Amino acid sequence: MFEVLARCGAARRGRLTTASGLVETPAFMPCGTYGTVKAMTPEGLVAVGAQIILGNSFHLMLRPGDERIREAGGLHAFMNWPGPILTDSGGFQIWSLGELRQITEREAVFRSPINGDRVHLSPERSIEVQRNLGSDVLMVLDECTTYPATPAEARASMELSMLWAQRSRAAWDGHEPNGRKLFGIVQGGMHEDLRRESLGRLVEIGFDGYALGGLSVGEPKAEMDAVLCAIAPHMPLHRPRYLMGVGTPADILRAVTLGLDMFDCVMPTRHARNGWLFTSRGVVKIRHARQRRADAPLDADCACYACTGFSRAYLHHLDRCGEVLGAMLMTTHNLHYYQNLMAQLRQAIEMGTLPGLAKTLAEGWSRNDEPG
Amino acid sequence: MFEVLARCGAARRGRLTTASGLVETPAFMPCGTYGTVKAMTPEGLVAVGAQIILGNSFHLMLRPGDERIREAGGLHAFMNWPGPILTDSGGFQIWSLGELRQITEREAVFRSPINGDRVHLSPERSIEVQRNLGSDVLMVLDECTTYPATPAEARASMELSMLWAQRSRAAWDGHEPNGRKLFGIVQGGMHEDLRRESLGRLVEIGFDGYALGGLSVGEPKAEMDAVLCAIAPHMPLHRPRYLMGVGTPADILRAVTLGLDMFDCVMPTRHARNGWLFTSRGVVKIRHARQRRADAPLDADCACYACTGFSRAYLHHLDRCGEVLGAMLMTTHNLHYYQNLMAQLRQAIEMGTLPGLAKTLAEGWSRNDEPG
Repeated sequence: MFEVLARCGAARRGRLTTASGLVETPAFMPCGTYGTVKAMTPEGLVAVGAQIILGNSFHLMLRPGDERIREAGGLHAFMNWPGPILTDSGGFQIWSLGELRQITEREAVFRSPINGDRVHLSPERSIEVQRNLGSDVLMVLDECTTYPATPAEARASMELSMLWAQRSRAAWDGHEPNGRKLFGIVQGGMHEDLRRESLGRLVEIGFDGYALGGLSVGEPKAEMDAVLCAIAPHMPLHRPRYLMGVGTPADILRAVTLGLDMFDCVMPTRHARNGWLFTSRGVVKIRHARQRRADAPLDADCACYACTGFSRAYLHHLDRCGEVLGAMLMTTHNLHYYQNLMAQLRQAIEMGTLPGLAKTLAEGWSRNDEPG
Repeated sequence: MFEVLARCGAARRGRLTTASGLVETPAFMPCGTYGTVKAMTPEGLVAVGAQIILGNSFHLMLRPGDERIREAGGLHAFMNWPGPILTDSGGFQIWSLGELRQITEREAVFRSPINGDRVHLSPERSIEVQRNLGSDVLMVLDECTTYPATPAEARASMELSMLWAQRSRAAWDGHEPNGRKLFGIVQGGMHEDLRRESLGRLVEIGFDGYALGGLSVGEPKAEMDAVLCAIAPHMPLHRPRYLMGVGTPADILRAVTLGLDMFDCVMPTRHARNGWLFTSRGVVKIRHARQRRADAPLDADCACYACTGFSRAYLHHLDRCGEVLGAMLMTTHNLHYYQNLMAQLRQAIEMGTLPGLAKTLAEGWSRNDEPG
């Protein structure tokens, strides 16, 4: 079930009820690639305010294997995360393999990057994997359209994704949902007419939510924005809308104002491990030599464990020494920053003050006194 | 101040009062090499029961520099650990450099393993470094005697350490102690007469505590034991006795029964990162293929965060994928195991039941159903 609780312009404040608990939207989902959000404990995730995390079918089917996770009681039990989990279908990772994969109408076949084994992934198999994981929100298998693509290429790719969406739905329909949900994925590249057609065909099949895939794949920001502006107003009002793999705080703010509800991205976690830290005054690069003597906290306005107990100089030192605690503290901060951003957005939508918040946030990010 | 609160045979239950708080002994000090106990937050250290940690002068004087830490308010503030800190003198690490260092009566000179710089470390400079760090317990600079050593080599090395101990004391005497303590280090290799002589000369100089250095440097267990048996009964009764760099749970148990009070070792933290885990039934090797399907906890008798929320199979998976969370959980477990062992030892000394506990522990360790 998904309820829209409040609106502010096109933005929505919603609540998704899953078999494992509630998700207040707009929501950001940290990425738990191999059954762990890198450098975070489950209790650390709760502390930063995460309500739902994303699991990767592709990675988990290779290591430790989806059957192994099913035997262990499912992904929730295996990783000790009792809250909601959304799993992707594996489509995006297969697309990322480039030359290492072959895609036919029937299925994708690829070489395992772990051991070279030949692995098959069909829409039916992807649903099986996600059922073995015990996911609360499953995604249909899709093909991510390469950027750039001609209209003919984008159409062919979108047609394949729609066929696979239909087969994913059919594979899912044989089972009791038990509160679990299946989301469709809109493709069509940067072509607005194809996007519109893709959405229409998914709605005809009928899903519990609708995602936008194939964005943030190398296109200029303006192209992504054009697609969002063109498609968001046509997405079903009473279903969650999920923008896959996006993005920076500014990207998320923009998409929320256009009416998107759910987001995931490796950016906060991966950037943290590389010393790129999101703050109320823009990005701080902890590796910069100026941080060596910076005894102030990373973000004086932040209430996270890293900012309340440690200095920039200490984080700089940990990063320089390759210490695990650096990854732990910086990941905690970046995820806290993202979750706090989502909480601010939710509150502003409820209060009808989203335009004011958007202005304040943008001003803060541009006030960065550490350019370059 | 150090009080002996209870005894059981030669074993002592004590309390060391430092400028940063109390240390209940026998105590184990996790190693915080670069101003962080690897893969642990300060709050995680408190949760496993650590009361005092060890900082490495050698590493910290190179990165970020002891002057930098002084500017940042000292090591306690820099690393957000308000509790007691003992710092070593740098002597052991310099000795470990082998060919990269030259030792004269005046000082040790070595090439920095970080950037190749020529670095000097004298007894006076070591005290300065430790004062810059703001240590609660400082150690004199010593030379670790190589194993094996002839009596002449061991004597020459011990004589140097005694000269440096005297100079360390003199360098320290110029300052207000403010509750901070200086410990001497007994050397003399495996030669009991030299050890006895070294101890006597240190007692003559006068220190707040006495450490045994130069053990666990490659000698057979029986040789270390012989030195401990020969020297422990002669160590001053009303001063803390610190066995440096030791060791396994069995080593610590043995030394506690002989009357030692303080210990440090990288073993629990380093072994954790390599998947060697200490349990009530001996060592569990998490990388073993049998752990892949082991859905039981690591140690069913353990109350740590890793054992109460996660399975061996999950730890095996994290280790196999090189996930940071594996290091975090396994370090938490090993340190919890060590701290819990110390708590058990303290209680048994108070209750006069140390021999019974020693028997129970040894039986448990030998009941390991996972040999090899």
